[in-house]
Amino acid sequence: MKTEVIIIGGGPAGIIAALTAKSVYAQKSVCLVKEIGDGVIPCAIPYMMHTISDPKQNAMGNLPLENAGVDIVVGKVISFNPLAHSVTLETGQVLYYERLILATGTEPVLPPISGIEKEGVFTIRKSMATAVALRDQIHKAKRIAIVGGGFIGAEFADELCQRAEAEIHIIEIMPKLLQSAFDDEFCDRIYEALNKAGTKVHTGSRVVSIEGNKQVESVILDNGEKISADMVLVSIGAKPASKLAQEAGLRLVENGSIWVDEYMRTDTEDVFAIGDCAVKRDFFTRKAAPIWLASTATAEARNAGTNIYGIRVLHQIQGTIAAFSTKIGGISFASAGMTCRSCAKEGFRYVTATAVAPDRHPGVLPGAKQLKVKLVFADRSGIILGGQISGGPSVGELINMIALAIQTQVSVRELDMMQIATHPMLTPAPTVHPMVNAAHQALAKFRAEVVAPGSSKKVA
Amino acid sequence: MKTEVIIIGGGPAGIIAALTAKSVYAQKSVCLVKEIGDGVIPCAIPYMMHTISDPKQNAMGNLPLENAGVDIVVGKVISFNPLAHSVTLETGQVLYYERLILATGTEPVLPPISGIEKEGVFTIRKSMATAVALRDQIHKAKRIAIVGGGFIGAEFADELCQRAEAEIHIIEIMPKLLQSAFDDEFCDRIYEALNKAGTKVHTGSRVVSIEGNKQVESVILDNGEKISADMVLVSIGAKPASKLAQEAGLRLVENGSIWVDEYMRTDTEDVFAIGDCAVKRDFFTRKAAPIWLASTATAEARNAGTNIYGIRVLHQIQGTIAAFSTKIGGISFASAGMTCRSCAKEGFRYVTATAVAPDRHPGVLPGAKQLKVKLVFADRSGIILGGQISGGPSVGELINMIALAIQTQVSVRELDMMQIATHPMLTPAPTVHPMVNAAHQALAKFRAEVVAPGSSKKVA
Repeated sequence: MKTEVIIIGGGPAGIIAALTAKSVYAQKSVCLVKEIGDGVIPCAIPYMMHTISDPKQNAMGNLPLENAGVDIVVGKVISFNPLAHSVTLETGQVLYYERLILATGTEPVLPPISGIEKEGVFTIRKSMATAVALRDQIHKAKRIAIVGGGFIGAEFADELCQRAEAEIHIIEIMPKLLQSAFDDEFCDRIYEALNKAGTKVHTGSRVVSIEGNKQVESVILDNGEKISADMVLVSIGAKPASKLAQEAGLRLVENGSIWVDEYMRTDTEDVFAIGDCAVKRDFFTRKAAPIWLASTATAEARNAGTNIYGIRVLHQIQGTIAAFSTKIGGISFASAGMTCRSCAKEGFRYVTATAVAPDRHPGVLPGAKQLKVKLVFADRSGIILGGQISGGPSVGELINMIALAIQTQVSVRELDMMQIATHPMLTPAPTVHPMVNAAHQALAKFRAEVVAPGSSKKVA
Repeated sequence: MKTEVIIIGGGPAGIIAALTAKSVYAQKSVCLVKEIGDGVIPCAIPYMMHTISDPKQNAMGNLPLENAGVDIVVGKVISFNPLAHSVTLETGQVLYYERLILATGTEPVLPPISGIEKEGVFTIRKSMATAVALRDQIHKAKRIAIVGGGFIGAEFADELCQRAEAEIHIIEIMPKLLQSAFDDEFCDRIYEALNKAGTKVHTGSRVVSIEGNKQVESVILDNGEKISADMVLVSIGAKPASKLAQEAGLRLVENGSIWVDEYMRTDTEDVFAIGDCAVKRDFFTRKAAPIWLASTATAEARNAGTNIYGIRVLHQIQGTIAAFSTKIGGISFASAGMTCRSCAKEGFRYVTATAVAPDRHPGVLPGAKQLKVKLVFADRSGIILGGQISGGPSVGELINMIALAIQTQVSVRELDMMQIATHPMLTPAPTVHPMVNAAHQALAKFRAEVVAPGSSKKVA
């Protein structure tokens, strides 16, 4: 069977690549091959446990693909041959392509913890069947230990706390929760929020073994502490699913991810890779950055889907800006770009400022929450490097304003003088909006240096 | 009394100018002179009627000014003399300045409607005393006619509907509500939302007279319709409060507003004007645009406050982008930049696209609302001209992403390839975010033109 564009992988990257390719090249046949027939919206898996009453409501439907005229094949690809331009499925079926897009995602890796093979240890997989099985187990469990305090672990903990009968523990090896995305003051706030919601948080702790006979009974931490648990949820350890690519001779780089150029082209003719299986580079340093986000994946998918038959849009994927948002203990948190922590680590000199205001005005309006914005700017140029926010639900789109500012390399001066829309029910007051105020305060720090005796630095 | 920087006007523009001047020029004495001693946060005046249980909670406090070391004088300025660098108060007190910033705002103008002088006719003024008097009257009124269906009129109508005993009418002379900020489909949605909340909306209607003896009894429309009303709220008709400036010989321009350059300097040495009293120009056409927004005023205030002793930040105020947000009938609406309507009027050729998705993912999550984003791009260059949004509360900050995009002149291609942060509880899915999707769909229209036979247009 000859199809002109084949996409392997049915996650967000694969779907958007297929839709984009079909919309840009309407005359081409586009086929998406996916292993999981009953996929779910991945970011909402934590909320399938309690919040979404019927987990079926989180199904990733085929309708948009079908409506667009994308063919769908459910099956496991066992190999592809770049010379023959062919893809072979487990069933023996062979498909031929003009262009191939790999969107194979990541696969979970179990950390080498003694006892990790026991019954009651779960990883998070992206099919409806596995999610429903996980939900059933969670509804029965009395004590759950979550290994890994990143976004997924924290979101699961927050969700699982809803069931008052369950005792929830989260164990994170680093000193702070989510410290790759946030500076200490935000990490501490997340810790408090989780704690207050009822999760027992163990930071700076490593799980050394999982105890029990056949079935999990407890986990042992490196400080000797023993946590009783009848269920363990492992939310660390994933790696790019690049075996197919490797066997086909494609160039792999850091973490086994597939090397791609800035238009998502692999080193092999007519083969593209997007999403979690493709190498992610940091926007500022261009270093490999194992940051796997559906939103970054879909941006790559739109790029690849547009450019498969020649570069048509000169917008390079210049690296991930690591734009995250989440909600923990009823508080929304978000981050994009560099933190002070990552600046220090990477040797970036920075100027930072934080501003706080109620997210409605006056702050007595019903539903008002404190909105906190921290911005980080490059020391000399004043170009924005990153931002972190906490507050109410408006955080979810406010971080996207910061994301846009980072991607368009806006300066502290532009943000300081920016016109924004404000409304009593929807935003902070125009006089105190923390987005503008943080920029204004940062600018004052640049200015302070200007007027300092002996300084020749100018801000204009 | 000699003070170095004098600001006349205690609204958002005056306050931010004073705070900025004091923060940039800490060694200078800064004095704010305001006529209204008991000012309120202006944008929240509608919500002082019912939503804010104690109207005192909407007071515009002096604390930020006091904390910053700004002197405050409550009093009416009757004149200033640019040669003598002096300001004279009604009390006879004379103040001397090095730099003067006028932030005198607007004043209501009563339209020439017969009977407008009757008892029971109110305009909206910005002191606590007038707001409380208005509230008292509103709490007693049985039938209220609101004249003018702009943002303030619509917000008052929505607020006043909360009191079920009151019958609320709104009368707008134009064919649609809010049509200067929105295209028809959004205006119609606002109409429906107001209607559903209980307001009787009369568009395309002019009030020809207000009837009654001493006290208002009804208003008569141009189609002969008579609306019984024991109270009339006039929310049209304002003009820049520029009498002081005119008498001092400053150059006035359209609508009697004070002429300023792009650093808010008037034509008179050492005198600046900011906010509603200073001329507003449209960002795209540079035509005078009588759009009076606190958020634009504060941007101008930061500019003037920084630049009073020499241009220190090269960011020009290039004109207002007219960034609005509001909430009507529980739905949030926002707009920034040009609409299709204003493009047509001003002769801008454009490409537009609209995308819709639930603002949480999956859409079954509690609290999810439909988020609709319409983007307007310049025909050839693909630079963003404007955006309109309706949906839940996230609209309030999403419009600021569009506001930033407009001010940094982002193209449809940049938005199409943009990385964003998404989260099930906070945003649409990354695969369908209407901000990105609207750009993607608009880009497809540019592309359709490219591949059209005989077209030499390129998109890259």
